Amino acid sequence: MGGDIFSRFFDPESVAIIGSFKEGVFGGYVAVKSLRQAGYSGRIYPVNPSYDEVLGLRTYPSIHDTPDTPDVAMIMINARNVPDVLEQCARRGTRAVILVADGFAERNQEGALLQERITAMAREWGVRIIGPNTAGIVSPHTGFNPCPYEAGYYGLKPGPVAIFSQTGMINPQAYPYPQLTAGISRICDFGNKCDLDECDLLEYLEHDDKTRVISMYLESIRDGERFVKVCGRLTSKKPALALKLGTTPEGAMASASHTGSLAVDDRIFDAACRQAGVLRLSAFNELFEIPKIFATQPLPSGNRVGIVTYTGALGVLTSDQGAGYGLSMASLSPETADAFDRIFPELGHMPVDIGPMIPAVKDFSTVYTQILETVLRDENVDALFNVMWADARGKNEKAYIEAYEALKGIVPKPVVTWIYGPGPSAVRALKEQLEALGYPVFDEPERCVKSLGMACRYAQIRRNKNK
Amino acid sequence: MGGDIFSRFFDPESVAIIGSFKEGVFGGYVAVKSLRQAGYSGRIYPVNPSYDEVLGLRTYPSIHDTPDTPDVAMIMINARNVPDVLEQCARRGTRAVILVADGFAERNQEGALLQERITAMAREWGVRIIGPNTAGIVSPHTGFNPCPYEAGYYGLKPGPVAIFSQTGMINPQAYPYPQLTAGISRICDFGNKCDLDECDLLEYLEHDDKTRVISMYLESIRDGERFVKVCGRLTSKKPALALKLGTTPEGAMASASHTGSLAVDDRIFDAACRQAGVLRLSAFNELFEIPKIFATQPLPSGNRVGIVTYTGALGVLTSDQGAGYGLSMASLSPETADAFDRIFPELGHMPVDIGPMIPAVKDFSTVYTQILETVLRDENVDALFNVMWADARGKNEKAYIEAYEALKGIVPKPVVTWIYGPGPSAVRALKEQLEALGYPVFDEPERCVKSLGMACRYAQIRRNKNK
Repeated sequence: MGGDIFSRFFDPESVAIIGSFKEGVFGGYVAVKSLRQAGYSGRIYPVNPSYDEVLGLRTYPSIHDTPDTPDVAMIMINARNVPDVLEQCARRGTRAVILVADGFAERNQEGALLQERITAMAREWGVRIIGPNTAGIVSPHTGFNPCPYEAGYYGLKPGPVAIFSQTGMINPQAYPYPQLTAGISRICDFGNKCDLDECDLLEYLEHDDKTRVISMYLESIRDGERFVKVCGRLTSKKPALALKLGTTPEGAMASASHTGSLAVDDRIFDAACRQAGVLRLSAFNELFEIPKIFATQPLPSGNRVGIVTYTGALGVLTSDQGAGYGLSMASLSPETADAFDRIFPELGHMPVDIGPMIPAVKDFSTVYTQILETVLRDENVDALFNVMWADARGKNEKAYIEAYEALKGIVPKPVVTWIYGPGPSAVRALKEQLEALGYPVFDEPERCVKSLGMACRYAQIRRNKNK
Repeated sequence: MGGDIFSRFFDPESVAIIGSFKEGVFGGYVAVKSLRQAGYSGRIYPVNPSYDEVLGLRTYPSIHDTPDTPDVAMIMINARNVPDVLEQCARRGTRAVILVADGFAERNQEGALLQERITAMAREWGVRIIGPNTAGIVSPHTGFNPCPYEAGYYGLKPGPVAIFSQTGMINPQAYPYPQLTAGISRICDFGNKCDLDECDLLEYLEHDDKTRVISMYLESIRDGERFVKVCGRLTSKKPALALKLGTTPEGAMASASHTGSLAVDDRIFDAACRQAGVLRLSAFNELFEIPKIFATQPLPSGNRVGIVTYTGALGVLTSDQGAGYGLSMASLSPETADAFDRIFPELGHMPVDIGPMIPAVKDFSTVYTQILETVLRDENVDALFNVMWADARGKNEKAYIEAYEALKGIVPKPVVTWIYGPGPSAVRALKEQLEALGYPVFDEPERCVKSLGMACRYAQIRRNKNK
């Protein structure tokens, strides 16, 4: 299977970095620095005849001079020199190549021909390529982060989210992974994907025990039938989310110049996703945001969403948006409704609007925790959307955190949170703390609803597959 | 016309604050504090028989005791006492009432009856009401900010954006207005809108020279015909954007319990918007975000979008998303294309992808400014979507800012910007500086495209109306 090679890519015991080691924001120097700072415990072999050492590591004139055969070679050189270096890698026995070099099919006709040539060479020699025109891969569990761009941070928190793409926009220099507290299992930018592609990686991820949710950015699918087959199997085990660009004729043309991709009719792709149980995303940031609910929350066992809010507007918004995903607003059970009405008049219906109650409440922390817990325990509620108002001075912060600490693990139902308020730094601070507790917070209310909708949809897909 | 009364609401010479003056996060005390801190220059009359003074201001036992007739009364008392106080306001000659008190139609049947009663009273006496169940209004140009919730900030930057709603989620305690650098003309939460409504305000805003763009959150429309008529006139002068919730049967039910609103069929509302030239929004944050392009940028004279980016992916995304708004990716004129190809191979086509060029460029600042200026001046380009990579250390920041300073005013074409990068604080810092220069920055690329789409659509509406 194409997937096996990824064990080598993601968990290599040694890596050759072939490129320039001039200090800068891009190149071999940064790749070596990223690996060292990320705590990669394998052997790093910088390869370049013009240097003796880089960052305290001995460099080697060519890959033939390294003490042993590197598992992986990362190549960052001028496109016209790639065939030679690829041949050297093959002769050395290095079969996994990350080809960062650009100037291939994405550039012009000449580059496309060169890409064809190296692809044929690789096939002949049994070398597998990620790229060209890739920003590379990251595997945080072993500190394998050869990011060739200066990101300003190096270690990524290991976790269950795998992200792959046909753009470097998912690599560390482009996205602030330290704020994705759910954690990352694998990152892979296929670039022009001259050889290894989405299906190869999906085959690997299906059995990768580090990965529990997969988020993918695609401009093209090389083999639609295989995609349906691989994903159909994979989604019975873990959720797969896809953002597909190039869906319009205009976008397809732009895609051809970005990665040299051939278009796939969007209706066909949509049908393939339905058949395979792949959930479609519709915005770039969703690639990073929507996986959070799968990484941290249990799947809902139904579609009834309980809402606790400071404003009825969010009840309306949730009802509107949720209807599109088959969600419905939960009705409280009569016992819960009565109990809430005794706390404050008319509190006992959905959405549970605590706004009017606030001025009358003495011990906010206790009452708040009680309300959240009661809603979550209600048998009519499958999931909770909680809307928090962060006051400018962080006055409520402690109560919110205490409530979430109390909720942890009491009922296996998903909780998503939107925080609004007049002070952006208070909102950010609270978000950070709740996410550290394992509760996903989204920056827009619509994304809370969508994440619940996706979780609900996937739960249904999985029930259908596994019954 | 219903609109005239709003001159009094937004620019009163004196205001009575009727409520409790206990220190806290909500109530009369905070309203008085907000007014003083915002630099309101009119007279403030706190009204409550139990206090002698609040924040150094003399209080009055009743509105009858104030030195002169308050232009506006803001009422924050228990619902059951509202009829008496409303009668006192009427007898005193105060005709503009902001009824913050809740517990009316949004609460229960009893509240709905009470709301009917006060509405009838107001009508009989010629008193006009905003509310009940409102978080009030703000008019930054005169420092009139009687926000009854502690927001942690008080003065709002005056500017051309008017926002109104049926929820307090647009008031200062809920949204960080200091980061909306375009500035605000008027804020108004109608709450349950028992009397004054969206059409009254729209009539006022049509002629309000402080307002150049209008953003509205609606759950219901009281008079559809009037809405079409008023907006049809208004949109020939200034753009109007509408987020309508309660569009699904589920949402409509939730809306009934939020503001006691009656539903309007979404297809009818959509047709009304089309007829009236009102642009529809689809997410809560768009209420604040989309107006930025209208507040700061000229309207495009066509639909051809130039893109300067670090990644081809954004070209694909823009083409896909833009197609839905009738945007198309611009083609560079042959002269521009040739000039760019001389800077770097294959740079001279859309999207202008500067990523591959970066390592080869010596004087980034000069080349970058030249590229942006040339794209913007190109006769085939009607608008610019610029994608910036903010490196973690702010290394490029200076170049970006210099380029935008150089662009200012050279060509009357809209520019929108998306900033991505590994460091959230570097991204925020750059955003703040570009917005201070008058260039809108959006947090998601799709919103950049949408804002251009809306600007393009409105430009077309306006051309049709005014030809």
